[in-house]
Amino acid sequence: MTEDSLELLNQRLLTFAQARDWEQFHSPKNLVMALAGECGELLEHFQWLNEEQSASLAPEKKREVALEMADILIYLVRLSQRLGLDLLAAADEKIGINERRYPVEKVRGDARRADEYDR
Amino acid sequence: MTEDSLELLNQRLLTFAQARDWEQFHSPKNLVMALAGECGELLEHFQWLNEEQSASLAPEKKREVALEMADILIYLVRLSQRLGLDLLAAADEKIGINERRYPVEKVRGDARRADEYDR
Amino acid sequence: MTEDSLELLNQRLLTFAQARDWEQFHSPKNLVMALAGECGELLEHFQWLNEEQSASLAPEKKREVALEMADILIYLVRLSQRLGLDLLAAADEKIGINERRYPVEKVRGDARRADEYDR
Amino acid sequence: MTEDSLELLNQRLLTFAQARDWEQFHSPKNLVMALAGECGELLEHFQWLNEEQSASLAPEKKREVALEMADILIYLVRLSQRLGLDLLAAADEKIGINERRYPVEKVRGDARRADEYDR
Repeated sequence: MTEDSLELLNQRLLTFAQARDWEQFHSPKNLVMALAGECGELLEHFQWLNEEQSASLAPEKKREVALEMADILIYLVRLSQRLGLDLLAAADEKIGINERRYPVEKVRGDARRADEYDR
Repeated sequence: MTEDSLELLNQRLLTFAQARDWEQFHSPKNLVMALAGECGELLEHFQWLNEEQSASLAPEKKREVALEMADILIYLVRLSQRLGLDLLAAADEKIGINERRYPVEKVRGDARRADEYDR
Repeated sequence: MTEDSLELLNQRLLTFAQARDWEQFHSPKNLVMALAGECGELLEHFQWLNEEQSASLAPEKKREVALEMADILIYLVRLSQRLGLDLLAAADEKIGINERRYPVEKVRGDARRADEYDR
Repeated sequence: MTEDSLELLNQRLLTFAQARDWEQFHSPKNLVMALAGECGELLEHFQWLNEEQSASLAPEKKREVALEMADILIYLVRLSQRLGLDLLAAADEKIGINERRYPVEKVRGDARRADEYDR
């Protein structure tokens, strides 16, 4: 992780966990579960909305959604730290993979999964 | 989002989606589903490992995990953009909430959920 | 669980796990992760479909979806067995709770979450 | 679905949804999200427990877990109904597939994913 916002977040979260002696609970397995649990909470905000409604949330709802997303980012950064991974480098690599996997001329306007293009 | 790594990622993902005319699929509702789907893939890497094993992944497995985490970050950043949210500001706010909710002296070495402390 | 289809499924899954010596991996924690992982796969089938499309799947896709749902049911039944829970009794109890929580005259045509009705 | 407990559950849930005019919200896409959201709640109960603790829940916690699992079953049955799928038949088919995919003599005591056996 480069020395910027994500790295600052990482440092702050590490300090938070150490001060509470919570590193003992932060095994990668547990953090993955916590991350997925937060995704579940995010889903609940959107499950009965149609796509259009999902794009124009009321301010209070939008704030709640932002805080759920924050939880996901927090666990993602914690997990990177515990696994010794560079999250931003992985994102760069993945975007490169996606660019090769989904060439513009092949997939324009069509969002099927990669495994479905090859059928 | 400040002008740093996350903002650069955001710009790159926006360009990627626009070039493929995929913004039509990227409603917040759909992006939330995609985000949660990636969490499912991450879970699958860890489900049969014990906590100790989860902390010492083989290099190939670690790379796969990093790429799944990248997918989660990617959808999280896309979702922020579509909702017009500042993800880093939300993370800052959330950490502040957590600091007040879980005071060091109260929760040291105890990872129960906030709602369980008040019982 | 009463002596019927779910109980037969339970017996078959127990035999399957015991024959493979897989009960050692089937801690409730692990089964919960596996269950959630399968939900992730189910999400992936629906993430780019609109609601209308989701209701008229092509036969091959429908079969894949059915098998993902089967995985979820399988892990749910395994988890019940490992926890010593009666899943059907719990479903009965939960429907009773929902009937009291969402009285017809109050919620007709409105799918907000229970916690939102009380605001 | 055969005429037994799951079918009775299905009928009861259908009546529940129709009485509240909630079928309009129960598109397969939405139900999949709701199902996954409930999995998230289930995960939260287990995320900080180790495997041993997960196998010996306190009675009150066990009841809460049972009700979360009930929610998952409820949405699974609703989704089957909306998609016109036979969930039990799919489970039978899937177990057959697993029996062929994981022959006892090959996988005994080893829980790697199917795709990992072939590497």
